[in-house]
Amino acid sequence: MAISRADCAALDAADPLRHLRDEFVLPDGTVYLVGNSLGAPPKRASAAVTRVVEEEWGGRLVGAWNADGWFDLPTSTGDRLAPLIGAGPGQVVVGDTTSIAIVKAVSAALRLRPGRRVIVSDLDNFPTDRYMVQGLAGALGGYEIRDVRGTEGLDEALAGGDVACVLLSEVDYRTGNRHDTAEVTARVQAAGALMVWDLCHSAGAYQVDVSPADFAVGCTYKYLNGGPGSPAFVYVHPRHQADAEHILTGWHGHAAPFAFEPGYRPAEGVRRFAVSTPHVLSFASLNASLDVWERADLAEVRAKSVALTSLFIDLVEELCAPYGLGLATSRDPERRGSQVSFTHPEGYPVMRALIDRGVHGDFRAPDILRFGFAPLYIRHVDVHDAAVTLAEVLEKEHWRDERYRRRLAVT
Amino acid sequence: MAISRADCAALDAADPLRHLRDEFVLPDGTVYLVGNSLGAPPKRASAAVTRVVEEEWGGRLVGAWNADGWFDLPTSTGDRLAPLIGAGPGQVVVGDTTSIAIVKAVSAALRLRPGRRVIVSDLDNFPTDRYMVQGLAGALGGYEIRDVRGTEGLDEALAGGDVACVLLSEVDYRTGNRHDTAEVTARVQAAGALMVWDLCHSAGAYQVDVSPADFAVGCTYKYLNGGPGSPAFVYVHPRHQADAEHILTGWHGHAAPFAFEPGYRPAEGVRRFAVSTPHVLSFASLNASLDVWERADLAEVRAKSVALTSLFIDLVEELCAPYGLGLATSRDPERRGSQVSFTHPEGYPVMRALIDRGVHGDFRAPDILRFGFAPLYIRHVDVHDAAVTLAEVLEKEHWRDERYRRRLAVT
Repeated sequence: MAISRADCAALDAADPLRHLRDEFVLPDGTVYLVGNSLGAPPKRASAAVTRVVEEEWGGRLVGAWNADGWFDLPTSTGDRLAPLIGAGPGQVVVGDTTSIAIVKAVSAALRLRPGRRVIVSDLDNFPTDRYMVQGLAGALGGYEIRDVRGTEGLDEALAGGDVACVLLSEVDYRTGNRHDTAEVTARVQAAGALMVWDLCHSAGAYQVDVSPADFAVGCTYKYLNGGPGSPAFVYVHPRHQADAEHILTGWHGHAAPFAFEPGYRPAEGVRRFAVSTPHVLSFASLNASLDVWERADLAEVRAKSVALTSLFIDLVEELCAPYGLGLATSRDPERRGSQVSFTHPEGYPVMRALIDRGVHGDFRAPDILRFGFAPLYIRHVDVHDAAVTLAEVLEKEHWRDERYRRRLAVT
Repeated sequence: MAISRADCAALDAADPLRHLRDEFVLPDGTVYLVGNSLGAPPKRASAAVTRVVEEEWGGRLVGAWNADGWFDLPTSTGDRLAPLIGAGPGQVVVGDTTSIAIVKAVSAALRLRPGRRVIVSDLDNFPTDRYMVQGLAGALGGYEIRDVRGTEGLDEALAGGDVACVLLSEVDYRTGNRHDTAEVTARVQAAGALMVWDLCHSAGAYQVDVSPADFAVGCTYKYLNGGPGSPAFVYVHPRHQADAEHILTGWHGHAAPFAFEPGYRPAEGVRRFAVSTPHVLSFASLNASLDVWERADLAEVRAKSVALTSLFIDLVEELCAPYGLGLATSRDPERRGSQVSFTHPEGYPVMRALIDRGVHGDFRAPDILRFGFAPLYIRHVDVHDAAVTLAEVLEKEHWRDERYRRRLAVT
């Protein structure tokens, strides 16, 4: 084998991030490669949420809105998250969901380009990105949605000079492939359009540089480990903050909420992208995770991500060569996130057989096996064990077992 | 005095809901009359949230989406909440915030009345209701917002036959006054318009009957005690469910989310009003509160609410007669929620002096002192203590103390 399990253990012992694994709850006997879907819980999340429930809510009741900074959570949490995506203070607001964040960012972008009536949307975007834009375009009327597939067809789509904004995902949720965001952003902006990036599969996977983008959105429950349904974020470039106005004009985005004015006036700066009462308990677990992130060197995170994903590709290709897997992810580390995907015609039962043996990835139709490598808690030995187990499932055809072939409602 | 504290204690001893007070965390020495803003924590909320963090998220990780019913939270929680507003199963979906829920309900209502281009909005609505409709109308284009004040001017507003929908709050957040929803709804519907009720200050205050309404929205963190930022709800009348389409078309409202189709197709029924990933931790504390609500007889809740609010009006008017208070709430129990408001020209420092003495109400500009009486945990003795303390603050002019007169950023 290219590398032994003992060699992997030695790499783990030398890993500068190894102490951070102790910050996470990971069930015994589980290799958890689904951090790209739902991150593992930081151990401190439970106490952080309990503190909010018992000390803040229970102790200060409605007074906690001031005393415990609840009212400012959208911007204070945004400022804490900002460095992870290469943003500065006052550029990120946290709240709502990714879907709602898309409406905020795209509607603001469209208003900044009033003469242009085309939204470019990616066929490979996660569906909600597409659906929310469809709903928005239907609401606004007079907009055309022009589909591309990744950057295929992008130049043609931009050529007419009628594109207001482009919404792409930096990392593809199925393949794990990563765009050259700087290059794509420059191309879009050179055509006079605004660039909106979806960073759901980027934030926490590596050091994002959002700074050339006009807007960005993302979730916090994948690599950022904020917990199930932790709030989403919106990034607004400083050059747009004075003029950007979105359509979800809520009380928390008002210039003077406690003046209770009859008409909406947007707050100064990114605060206007807050809408309504923050989900305080969901913010609590996200902030517990950001405590851990503050201790992570992002260059080390990236180096480890590249090492883990490269190792997985190498091992799987060596061990599973005869069994019909196809690599769906780029071999160039610069062109992938922290995820590796393989195709297999029996991908669904293969994944279920793998999970039954303690290696958790997931499956996306029609044929994709996804494996996410969260650098804060995945080890080289986990990568080794996953590859060996996958080879065993394929070699022994465990996946032919009837119980793995029945579809679940949610996969 | 009209009634002694001992008499109040006797009423509490005979209160059929008295055992439910033990379900709530209430700090010693505090009379908490702000349950109309943020309900007190159910004692079981902390354990419920801990269980979700440690057993569900920590124990089953991404598998909890199926195993622990996370994916169905918007509809399963909606079915639990439905009886509290007089709705049936399959009619309520929980998620997002009240502001977002308003966009869902109003945008769906407008599409059901395509030939009509007027939205009636209430100057006395909580500001976010007004702001979200302003944002929506701006997005859609071609709509007029016609302002009324409560039902003043409603007939004139409806007379032209051009109103698509009317958005009113059943209970006014400042005065606590309650509309006759059945009568108003009938009037609106007779004019061919659709009725959207905001139930933020109704749900949990008494047995709501939402059934004549076309749509309704509300929050769950006031009388429902769901916790800070617990998710909102949308009610959709069964007659509209096949046709109602709103503009926030997210993945969780899709007919087949795991088919990952490129185009949006609405789910059957009320599920299409779900948008995106539920804030699972915030649902956990809400569901803990609904456990308590399942043990409350709503007729008893209403009877106690009427008793408490009537007693407060009587005692304050008796004890505080010389001190310039004005009753802002109806004397007719049928025309008020579970809140009593008084005006006072020095309302802000009066309220701060009161809070300093352990009686927590709140203040709304320009001159309103609000007191909410959550029937599950407020006692007759609390009402007595609040009235006596208010009289003392006014009689001794404690509110003239300079430290009560400085405005806080958030009041």
